[in-house]
Amino acid sequence: MRDNNNNLHELTATEIVARTKAGTLRVEDYARALLAHIDATEPALRAWVVYDPQRVLAEARALDQLPPARRGPLHGVAVAVKDIFLTRDYPTAYGSAFPGHTAPPGIDATAVAVLRGAGALIVGKTTSTQFAASTHGPATVNAADSARTPGGSSSGSAAAVAALHVPLALGTQTGGSIIRPASFNGVWGLKPTWNAISRDGVKIYSLTCDTVGVFARSAADVALAAGVFGLSEPGEPPAPSTLRLAAVRTAAWEHATPATEAALSRAIALLTKAGVTVEEVELEALAEAAGDENTQWHDTERYRAVIHPEGARAFWPDYYTFPEGERAAERGQRLESDVVEQIEDGLRRGDEAHLAALDTYARLRARFGALTAGYDAVITPSTTGYAPLLDETRHTGNSVFCTLWTVLHVPVVNVPGLTEDGLPVGISLVGRRYEDAQLLRVAEAVGQVFARDA
Amino acid sequence: MRDNNNNLHELTATEIVARTKAGTLRVEDYARALLAHIDATEPALRAWVVYDPQRVLAEARALDQLPPARRGPLHGVAVAVKDIFLTRDYPTAYGSAFPGHTAPPGIDATAVAVLRGAGALIVGKTTSTQFAASTHGPATVNAADSARTPGGSSSGSAAAVAALHVPLALGTQTGGSIIRPASFNGVWGLKPTWNAISRDGVKIYSLTCDTVGVFARSAADVALAAGVFGLSEPGEPPAPSTLRLAAVRTAAWEHATPATEAALSRAIALLTKAGVTVEEVELEALAEAAGDENTQWHDTERYRAVIHPEGARAFWPDYYTFPEGERAAERGQRLESDVVEQIEDGLRRGDEAHLAALDTYARLRARFGALTAGYDAVITPSTTGYAPLLDETRHTGNSVFCTLWTVLHVPVVNVPGLTEDGLPVGISLVGRRYEDAQLLRVAEAVGQVFARDA
Repeated sequence: MRDNNNNLHELTATEIVARTKAGTLRVEDYARALLAHIDATEPALRAWVVYDPQRVLAEARALDQLPPARRGPLHGVAVAVKDIFLTRDYPTAYGSAFPGHTAPPGIDATAVAVLRGAGALIVGKTTSTQFAASTHGPATVNAADSARTPGGSSSGSAAAVAALHVPLALGTQTGGSIIRPASFNGVWGLKPTWNAISRDGVKIYSLTCDTVGVFARSAADVALAAGVFGLSEPGEPPAPSTLRLAAVRTAAWEHATPATEAALSRAIALLTKAGVTVEEVELEALAEAAGDENTQWHDTERYRAVIHPEGARAFWPDYYTFPEGERAAERGQRLESDVVEQIEDGLRRGDEAHLAALDTYARLRARFGALTAGYDAVITPSTTGYAPLLDETRHTGNSVFCTLWTVLHVPVVNVPGLTEDGLPVGISLVGRRYEDAQLLRVAEAVGQVFARDA
Repeated sequence: MRDNNNNLHELTATEIVARTKAGTLRVEDYARALLAHIDATEPALRAWVVYDPQRVLAEARALDQLPPARRGPLHGVAVAVKDIFLTRDYPTAYGSAFPGHTAPPGIDATAVAVLRGAGALIVGKTTSTQFAASTHGPATVNAADSARTPGGSSSGSAAAVAALHVPLALGTQTGGSIIRPASFNGVWGLKPTWNAISRDGVKIYSLTCDTVGVFARSAADVALAAGVFGLSEPGEPPAPSTLRLAAVRTAAWEHATPATEAALSRAIALLTKAGVTVEEVELEALAEAAGDENTQWHDTERYRAVIHPEGARAFWPDYYTFPEGERAAERGQRLESDVVEQIEDGLRRGDEAHLAALDTYARLRARFGALTAGYDAVITPSTTGYAPLLDETRHTGNSVFCTLWTVLHVPVVNVPGLTEDGLPVGISLVGRRYEDAQLLRVAEAVGQVFARDA
């Protein structure tokens, strides 16, 4: 039996693996259908920096030659890789327009090697903002509305998954660079526990916050990919009536637009109707009840005191050129203006503020698990609203609802399914460190509730 | 005026910069003299994975063409790069014998780019143990005694600096991989504050511990290199009579051999005689006096619970191959046996122990500065003794005196100058996070005291 090649690009990763491992779908046929769809829609979407159809087909044929016993858990699954991961088959431009930043093809970043080793078909490299640090967007547009930003910095990966170019993509998050584009494009996004997926071979912005994660179009596909990294295990989603969620708005709530207010209210109403217990919770109140030192958990200035000094170190060779007098001009060629601003903000803040911020978050990190132990997950907005209209810098939007969870190192899943004004607005579920597998099952249950309403 | 080319390889980095910037030494002449010395002594030392004389001379000539106003603070200084840093001109084998691990020439790791941008002459790549994680040594021998290990994992960088192949080299430390080989070869080593030098483009073992640092033959050269990374500032070493040091032996002391016992005693005696106040201190006692929770600071099991699970993530694609049945054989080709043991130990420990260890160290990290605020630095052994004789695995020695400082993220300087039985035994000075510049001045003063005794 062969599938109708007209809709193979719509298959989820889970479906592809089932068919390619059963021998009912050749990877090459799947790749041809996918490439035809990409070729037809990429001119408008602009999600890719580079993909090479001949190379993809050659890899597909090689996968088809593998005897069944050697086929891995992602056999034949097409994957897009954010262009800040090194790859053996494509150059890496790090989202930068400066030609001197491009690394030639070399070896795979560890996360890419893991996926490739599991049988994934690496299709190519997807767009990023510069160094995944800038908020000046690439040419990519939102898959749901081409007048809007796809979000960033993992712009291309999110848009490519939403537009059925691939069922799975790699991204990274330092602020909100997985969860925000997932929310804006209406796809699933997993920002796992910090360092749960190796960031070897991935451009560094902030060692304390950078996290590798994935995009997909179904909870099962997120779990499939996470499983290859040892972050999920087989299991059914829990019954809604057994779930207890903490709705946490944080001090970021003042940035919520009506779309986010409506989406979170609707999410809570749907979940409650389905039998989920949802309690409004403030982390500060939980901490006070436990006798902890009084600390505001969401604090944009403290977050910047972590990442901007780290960014200054990471981007030093592009900032600190010799001789002094020629620096400003060289910088302008090498770095986006907002990256320069971040570096200079980082230098201004100084080491003492940086260390104080690191130590405060380390303390909160150690407390988050115990304070939220009574809940299966936190439910909170992914973004301030739906995707903004593109502006002159193609600004990728606000990450204010994501930064606390990133710096706490806790896993976050963007659950799609809700829309406001016809545009996707994601909801975040937040778990405890290294409880990624449990969080994924909870997220799947929540996604099923949202889907029943759709 | 031209130097006698017979001894140019003996120049320190500070001397080279003074001469090349003044125009009294051409970088090409210096490079020729250096390469002649390397060619003559490398067959016995085996510090290099690769260096290309023609490329080095071409780079030297390009540096000579730079107008004086464009010459950076390291103009013409020859630098060796540990072979786990990506470089634009040489492949990177990561200390691994497995051919599939080698990255072709690509772009410079950030630390390399900073040095090159400052005018350094990158000579080539120096040996490492596999992924800077194994303790199975490369072919390199100790520069002071060819029957002994040079230490590891930055084996080649330390030996190359000691053997006058280069005045400056890049290394990394996850346990004791800068301080130990610096101690064994009798050179200066700086393991700065964690993340003070970007590790972008450097192989990851443990994100929490990996630290980029440098080797040199003088305190001034360490400060010169550190300055390019923004970690030192001009200043005279303090007068010994103004210094107050805390002698901290830690629970690692049971591993000290007579050589380390003698070296530390002599160091303290010399410093005391020079007017330095040295007090025997236990971190646990300082913490107890401050009302802190009772915690043993040096704890090898807790340290392993940090790095081994992180290593398991980092080395996952080499460990977790498909299908299951063929894994063991593939692993044996890809990974040193002790790296496999670390991965498996990491998997066994589990997430809960990993998180507990991370959080405990985060707490101690936040306390170390305040508890030691009454001292200019901690003085402590660098190694358990002098370099052991080479054995069948070329074991690189014990890092037990280094791991606590690495995981606390504090800067450490190995001060050379003392010997026992005619072999170098280094002494470590430990500072507070981001007080690298102050620590370097204290270390210089201590080095002057040791040198007066030599």
